[in-house]
Amino acid sequence: MKKSFREIQGSIVAPAGFTASGVFCDIKKLGTGKGSNKGQKRDLTLIVSAAPATVAGMFTTNQVCAAPVKICVERVKKGTARAVVVNSGNANACTGKQGLADAREMVSFTEQALNLPSGSALVGSTGRIGVTMPMDNVRAGIIEAATLLGSATENADHAAEAIMTSDTRPKQIAIEFKLGGKTVRIGGMCKGAGMIQPGMSPTGARPATLPHGGLHATMLCFITTDATVDAKVLQTALNEAVAHSFNRITVDGDMSTNDTVLVLANGLAGNKKFTVQSPEFEVFAAALNHVCLELAKKIVRDGEGVHRVVTVKVNGAKNIQDADAAARAVANSPLVKTSWHGGDPNWGRIIDAIGYSPATVVEEKIDIGYSAAGGKKILWSLKRGQPTKATFKELCAAVAPKEFELHINLNLGKAKAVMYAADLTEEYVDFNKGDVGDPTTLGG
Amino acid sequence: MKKSFREIQGSIVAPAGFTASGVFCDIKKLGTGKGSNKGQKRDLTLIVSAAPATVAGMFTTNQVCAAPVKICVERVKKGTARAVVVNSGNANACTGKQGLADAREMVSFTEQALNLPSGSALVGSTGRIGVTMPMDNVRAGIIEAATLLGSATENADHAAEAIMTSDTRPKQIAIEFKLGGKTVRIGGMCKGAGMIQPGMSPTGARPATLPHGGLHATMLCFITTDATVDAKVLQTALNEAVAHSFNRITVDGDMSTNDTVLVLANGLAGNKKFTVQSPEFEVFAAALNHVCLELAKKIVRDGEGVHRVVTVKVNGAKNIQDADAAARAVANSPLVKTSWHGGDPNWGRIIDAIGYSPATVVEEKIDIGYSAAGGKKILWSLKRGQPTKATFKELCAAVAPKEFELHINLNLGKAKAVMYAADLTEEYVDFNKGDVGDPTTLGG
Repeated sequence: MKKSFREIQGSIVAPAGFTASGVFCDIKKLGTGKGSNKGQKRDLTLIVSAAPATVAGMFTTNQVCAAPVKICVERVKKGTARAVVVNSGNANACTGKQGLADAREMVSFTEQALNLPSGSALVGSTGRIGVTMPMDNVRAGIIEAATLLGSATENADHAAEAIMTSDTRPKQIAIEFKLGGKTVRIGGMCKGAGMIQPGMSPTGARPATLPHGGLHATMLCFITTDATVDAKVLQTALNEAVAHSFNRITVDGDMSTNDTVLVLANGLAGNKKFTVQSPEFEVFAAALNHVCLELAKKIVRDGEGVHRVVTVKVNGAKNIQDADAAARAVANSPLVKTSWHGGDPNWGRIIDAIGYSPATVVEEKIDIGYSAAGGKKILWSLKRGQPTKATFKELCAAVAPKEFELHINLNLGKAKAVMYAADLTEEYVDFNKGDVGDPTTLGG
Repeated sequence: MKKSFREIQGSIVAPAGFTASGVFCDIKKLGTGKGSNKGQKRDLTLIVSAAPATVAGMFTTNQVCAAPVKICVERVKKGTARAVVVNSGNANACTGKQGLADAREMVSFTEQALNLPSGSALVGSTGRIGVTMPMDNVRAGIIEAATLLGSATENADHAAEAIMTSDTRPKQIAIEFKLGGKTVRIGGMCKGAGMIQPGMSPTGARPATLPHGGLHATMLCFITTDATVDAKVLQTALNEAVAHSFNRITVDGDMSTNDTVLVLANGLAGNKKFTVQSPEFEVFAAALNHVCLELAKKIVRDGEGVHRVVTVKVNGAKNIQDADAAARAVANSPLVKTSWHGGDPNWGRIIDAIGYSPATVVEEKIDIGYSAAGGKKILWSLKRGQPTKATFKELCAAVAPKEFELHINLNLGKAKAVMYAADLTEEYVDFNKGDVGDPTTLGG
């Protein structure tokens, strides 16, 4: 399917009718005054659609859920939106009634600044937990951002920078493809580097049965498209896309209070509406999957202190829950993750994690092997629970690349699962142990 | 209760009738020849009772379970034993039929060397995974260890050293107390520093409902007592003691293939048998609890790269599973653990972990606070989901000590749980990323 998409410039402003901007308004209240924002990280983003857009969203299933998430869950249900305001530096989480009032003011102030109808703006936040929003700064930021809206690549770049926290680089993508005879574009940007193991649902509610190992980033993702897509169809496509991308990544196994994915579809490409049964759905869904997966992988690659990215592929599980549980146990085991950092093909730690996962496994049936990223040739280190003749040197070579795939076959059934995982490094620890002298590190 | 126990010297050889030894037999096959064991770590231990002993055991619930565990599960069922042989350097895990045959030979060779009845020896192993046991070395070690058995404190010290892997120091205890009018002793030693989150059961079988967050060390523990205790009564007491000690600790959240606790009770103190209903049971159980808890805490304190030990106390959960799940989520969160390392009172990360745990929680009801280890005065950082007026400086002071307690009240019910947890440091990562040039690091 990939071949049918053409990567294009412009990220979230590539689709027709979308403008964006990103400004610095000192949300961390570092005390820098007017005109001193040179070199400061931008911290407030606006994304605006020229025409009313259908909207779909996925939100953290963390029971401790930030105020902006609560507002979005409420508003996405209506199915339409025109704008998104996003800030970094403050998560507006654990901020009680004031937090909720502040999030409501962020959307209403944005609507006023942009002269949009009431109820048409959405909001996202990421940063410190437990500190109320500096609303004077936020209001000033929104006013400035509104004056800077544009559809140049630079505008998208500023927007993508302003949502970053511990990210070392902005994460963006845009693709173009044909849908119902029309040229359609999807653009997206995301942020996230730590507190990453998202488990999102359309309403933020937990599914009846939690996947073992948990639903577990602040990650934020904003996707724009000029395709015409009915809100329910858009939500169906997004559920599937997130299930196979953002909900399959882990940096540290911690799930944030703020995880949010929003998609706005403004219909300016002029294609006809389609249903879930139409051939157009498959094309659109595949394109959205591609955008989400590429953005999700960028998060893992830019994870805090990450040196190696490992795709953990579990096959042959009794059922999907077992496949997921085994993959997550391996992907989140500190011993497995440190061995990846060391370039150590330590299958003993891998089989240990599989064994203690909630998945049903039989030691004598487990295969473990390695391949190059996207490679088809697997070097097996363990077959049916027993070491193969692969040499230690060969195994070390297989785990030496910056990215590789780990293949686990439980040989008990047909279910499978994939996790996009990261190693655990001294840099991760050093970064996250915080700077105690600086109370701005309080929070997540 | 603590006051009724007197700590004494001698560890596992303090109880009447027990002898021990620890020798070097080069189980890692480092190639050092005879006479070159100066400075080498001892790697084989014998513990022997002069009289037949009743026995109880607890074993890893990891589905990938080492050969010595399988042998012990089988033999402990019989309820009596005379000796234990333990090696470090090789876990005899993932070694298939050969591994099982080797473990059987270890016990039968020990029985022959000590002139004990068939079926009276038990076995424990810890070290590399996936490498077959060097049986020539093991046999030579058993023969040498048999000649060195003694009941001096030095013998216990050698035994405790020989079971160490990444441990930086031996972990031992012995206590004396009155039971049914007689003076009784319990001695114990254990090992473990990484791959530590034991979840043990009497048969190694998983309970029908796994505690959320998993049962998750190689930790080995060997306890001796000269009390007269019926095997079933001993098992009942051990189940309870392990549930409140070894099964409540975590260093890295990884559960080993080899976790084992064994207790041998040889009756030489001469007290009368008692039932679970007798007042003597309470006294004995309290003593065994004390021994297990002190040993378990020694494991956390000596955890790989550990700088800080935190007792996580969850209260007010709806049920025990929720209390356990919330405590384990916090105790195993990389972001919480790195903040502990940094001396950062980051309650944002703590409430985030509580929120994504499988426990049912309500943000607006959660209290989070700190106290000194064993202290009664709690400094609350969060009350009912909202920051208190405690200053950042005060909170930093509360988390500065090497050991402190974290108090979480969910305010939803009456259930509670405790976890003895460790911080996550650069040293942990550095230690576990392994030395790739050295294939002896292969395994867990």
